[in-house]
Amino acid sequence: METVAYYNGKISEIDDMMIPMTDRGFTFGDGVYDATMARHQKIFALDEHLDRFWRSMAAVMITPNFTREELTNILNDLLTNVTGEAYMIYWQVTRGTGRRSHSFPLDATPNLAVMITPMSLDRGKQERPYRLRTELDIRSGLTHVKTINLLPNVLAAQRAMQESVDETVFYRMAANGDTRVTEGSKTNVHMIKAGKLITAPTDKLILPGIARQHLLQAARSLGMPVEERAFTVAELKTADEVFITSSTMMAGRVVSIDGESVGQRDEAHFIPLRTQLVDEWYAETE
Amino acid sequence: METVAYYNGKISEIDDMMIPMTDRGFTFGDGVYDATMARHQKIFALDEHLDRFWRSMAAVMITPNFTREELTNILNDLLTNVTGEAYMIYWQVTRGTGRRSHSFPLDATPNLAVMITPMSLDRGKQERPYRLRTELDIRSGLTHVKTINLLPNVLAAQRAMQESVDETVFYRMAANGDTRVTEGSKTNVHMIKAGKLITAPTDKLILPGIARQHLLQAARSLGMPVEERAFTVAELKTADEVFITSSTMMAGRVVSIDGESVGQRDEAHFIPLRTQLVDEWYAETE
Repeated sequence: METVAYYNGKISEIDDMMIPMTDRGFTFGDGVYDATMARHQKIFALDEHLDRFWRSMAAVMITPNFTREELTNILNDLLTNVTGEAYMIYWQVTRGTGRRSHSFPLDATPNLAVMITPMSLDRGKQERPYRLRTELDIRSGLTHVKTINLLPNVLAAQRAMQESVDETVFYRMAANGDTRVTEGSKTNVHMIKAGKLITAPTDKLILPGIARQHLLQAARSLGMPVEERAFTVAELKTADEVFITSSTMMAGRVVSIDGESVGQRDEAHFIPLRTQLVDEWYAETE
Repeated sequence: METVAYYNGKISEIDDMMIPMTDRGFTFGDGVYDATMARHQKIFALDEHLDRFWRSMAAVMITPNFTREELTNILNDLLTNVTGEAYMIYWQVTRGTGRRSHSFPLDATPNLAVMITPMSLDRGKQERPYRLRTELDIRSGLTHVKTINLLPNVLAAQRAMQESVDETVFYRMAANGDTRVTEGSKTNVHMIKAGKLITAPTDKLILPGIARQHLLQAARSLGMPVEERAFTVAELKTADEVFITSSTMMAGRVVSIDGESVGQRDEAHFIPLRTQLVDEWYAETE
């Protein structure tokens, strides 16, 4: 198969998979998801992604009708349908199927969907320059949960595309009038300042990225001090290095924000960090 | 037919309608909707609902591939498939179909879905007492747009059900520490104080309800002063009358909030207001 779609036991190519209109994902965005990369049939950091997926389900009161072991087996079995080197593997659970009514259907069981798509394995992805734009963060108070209520992220990603940049970085306004950088529309954002890695704390304003977690481990293993604290857009723009992380590209070096040239002044700290992250991914999926 | 589902030209019972997994409604909640009641094949306040629907589409950059006249014809044609007295009519547009990617698919055309379900016509619905609970409003900055990113509303409606009350009313925290009532998880909230109708302004914090609009017209036609202003939870709890409105029940009188008895002290103003709203609906769909 070129791609794999799964829905409650049915398997097909992604473009052929049909689901009921009454799946609550379609009318309420009533679900959560997670995603990672797989190479040589090995799913990268699956345990951490499943930990987060179970936390997401709990946060929105979805009780899975499958165990962690069963989901692991489903994902691994689905991967045997494809033969390429590397894939994105995305899975989503919605609250179930039922006539439209805000409160939960009494007898609904969750619907499990999986999508596997080929991924190009190109180190250039990590090595090309990334340009950002900033935007006020209007997302809901559920941003620390990986829900499929993604319309603000979709609009922010689209505005980035329309402005020919790579990603939108969100900021909130603090009570004292300062900006506070939260994260990107589909990435976490970090900076290096005076040899120190600085990143936003994982409070309710950001999604705890798995690549972010691996980044902190990499920094510590390289003996680099790590500070988890709030920071402003102005601080980000004057950092020695700025970069974004996600499970689909690991780490991307940022060269401009809102059209202003930024970072690129501490290669000595940034390059080993990025190399370690990318090498770890290759090693784990060898 | 018992119910009617429509999806890009296909028609079936709601429970039988299948849609592609790649509809962006399913993975991003990337769509907007509207809904109203129909009786005797007449759709109530369709023009106002279509005005709002077009505003919703514009707000999320969805360009419809149908005209207002075409959508009107589709809705009216679909209604000829049912023969009962009264129905809920719900329509939704999503950005289109495409492999999962935050930014818009280059060649996607919107997907139009409609669901028509029988509705019980029972004046008791308007006349029974409603109980509310309150909760911090954590919804996104898109609450003034009728999007299908409804997970916070779903969770709030569910908590209401679990606490055996009828609706959750949201409030924001103002900079000075005051609460500010926004709206219910699926209704607008109003109060009567000293003979005056007080309701939240339609800024970006609430969805401009069509029933709310009809309520303001009814109040004015009854010679009742109307004040559109922010108010606190404490103010709501000490009002002479509290009530909620929506296109599915018009107006419901509130008897308790957070377990405390409220309102029910100005029948002379409330009852004529409710009667006018309900009578108008019956008259327009005669």
